[in-house]
Amino acid sequence: MSLAIICPGKNPEAWIKVIKQHKPELEIQVYPNISAPDKVEVAMVWQHPSGILSEFKNLKMVSSMGAGVDHILTDESISKDLPIVRIVDEKLTWSMTNYVVMGVLNFHRQIERYRQDQKKKVWDMSNPEIPVKVGVMGVGALGGDVVDKLQYLGFPVMGYGFSEKKNLGFPYYSKNQLHDFLKEINVLVCLLPLTADTENILNAELFEACNPGTFVVNVARGKHLVDEDLISALDSDHLAGALLDVYRKEPLPKDHPFWDHPKIQFTPHIASVTNPEAAAPQVVENINRMEQNLPLQNRVNRDKGY
Amino acid sequence: MSLAIICPGKNPEAWIKVIKQHKPELEIQVYPNISAPDKVEVAMVWQHPSGILSEFKNLKMVSSMGAGVDHILTDESISKDLPIVRIVDEKLTWSMTNYVVMGVLNFHRQIERYRQDQKKKVWDMSNPEIPVKVGVMGVGALGGDVVDKLQYLGFPVMGYGFSEKKNLGFPYYSKNQLHDFLKEINVLVCLLPLTADTENILNAELFEACNPGTFVVNVARGKHLVDEDLISALDSDHLAGALLDVYRKEPLPKDHPFWDHPKIQFTPHIASVTNPEAAAPQVVENINRMEQNLPLQNRVNRDKGY
Repeated sequence: MSLAIICPGKNPEAWIKVIKQHKPELEIQVYPNISAPDKVEVAMVWQHPSGILSEFKNLKMVSSMGAGVDHILTDESISKDLPIVRIVDEKLTWSMTNYVVMGVLNFHRQIERYRQDQKKKVWDMSNPEIPVKVGVMGVGALGGDVVDKLQYLGFPVMGYGFSEKKNLGFPYYSKNQLHDFLKEINVLVCLLPLTADTENILNAELFEACNPGTFVVNVARGKHLVDEDLISALDSDHLAGALLDVYRKEPLPKDHPFWDHPKIQFTPHIASVTNPEAAAPQVVENINRMEQNLPLQNRVNRDKGY
Repeated sequence: MSLAIICPGKNPEAWIKVIKQHKPELEIQVYPNISAPDKVEVAMVWQHPSGILSEFKNLKMVSSMGAGVDHILTDESISKDLPIVRIVDEKLTWSMTNYVVMGVLNFHRQIERYRQDQKKKVWDMSNPEIPVKVGVMGVGALGGDVVDKLQYLGFPVMGYGFSEKKNLGFPYYSKNQLHDFLKEINVLVCLLPLTADTENILNAELFEACNPGTFVVNVARGKHLVDEDLISALDSDHLAGALLDVYRKEPLPKDHPFWDHPKIQFTPHIASVTNPEAAAPQVVENINRMEQNLPLQNRVNRDKGY
């Protein structure tokens, strides 16, 4: 039995160190140097080459190296019966919430306006706050924490998602109520999982249904957003601005218009960063559970896509 | 009996409207058109010309139009026996906290670094967070709320002040423990009242006692800060940066070096703004209490200076 680590372009050293501390006897093979594919029973993957897992005839479990599993679910060569698990990391949630709260506060308190005023040596005390109502799309572990923290800070917040949910402690809109939800808010935060339902959800039609002056934060996946539709909605002054952390192609290509757009604030996919110290022990725990035939932690529901 | 409003350079119309709603019979005289000074029993002031209150022989109470009272306490022509009251406004507290939390998050998540990276089209995911420990100088109504909200967001926070305080729910350093306090933190927030003890407290000696890389937020009064000492500490790279909302002279003079300093983020005294809707009824309430010989609300302790 061995663990295969497949994360091209990402250094797995910190992960290996923590895994060895917790389970020294585990044999680890790191892609592309997998000499004994038949011994692989668990694969730990991030942006793996599609189809590669079919080389492992004895595979029993696939673990994502992060909260997202879209890179696994879109690989059709992976058997539908294979259990898939993901990382739920409090530190990751904490970072994500801080990033979103920062984005909301910077819009509310107009940090960009005052930066321009400073450059021009303008002292203008008028209208220092833009009143905000925040809408969070996706209220799972990450989105739920964002809602909780923004509520504690005293902001009106509401949620949107594809499942029916009750008694959440905040207004919640499901599935077909998207336009009702958008009418209530002027800051839109996307924290949805990437599924067939949610791909390209941030498109021209959605932007049109937003209130004029809405600010968009995308911290989920680049494929949620139709890039050219965002640019049109910003250029027509219908949207006030956007804070983006994720892109259809990463790193963002040098010739992409997001780099230079005056209403787009860019960060390089750092809103939340999985921490091997917290995440690797979860992988070990699931390997132990698998070996003992116990229920797995943070198992993904394939039908829901997260 | 009449109320004198003295706030040169500030439009009192919104205040007058709310006061008239709550106490229509009250006679109001607005400086400089005070035709009957002997009728003035209450003065509501903001940055009044020093000495002017001695014209009111029958003055019984002075109310600040904001949280600060340094403009009143430094006017030596005002009798020490005259009751002074101030505004305690939840909305003002809310705005102040949002501003400080924004400043802390922007430093923690390095918003300025990513702005520069965007300009240069640099994709750099390394070290996305600067670990922060926040120290709040002054933990009254405003500072206490800042501590509470930052703790809820999960940041380590401690307080410093001139009075002894116990059981605050966070580490607290008083008076002579300033250097111990500074050694624990790398974000320093000044929310002290302006008194003889605190004037010029943010000076070269204090900055030297700060940890290298400390970030300074001044949202209290311009006179807390020795401007040239801050510039030296920034230029020597001992301090990481500063977010300033208040200045020794406001508006900040066009030739002041703060405008152009690459490590200083400027806002024009808008961190918190007193809202007449919430504040004016407090003035009316204190007039009613004065008339009925009841204890005044939010009365200032002259010895403490706040």
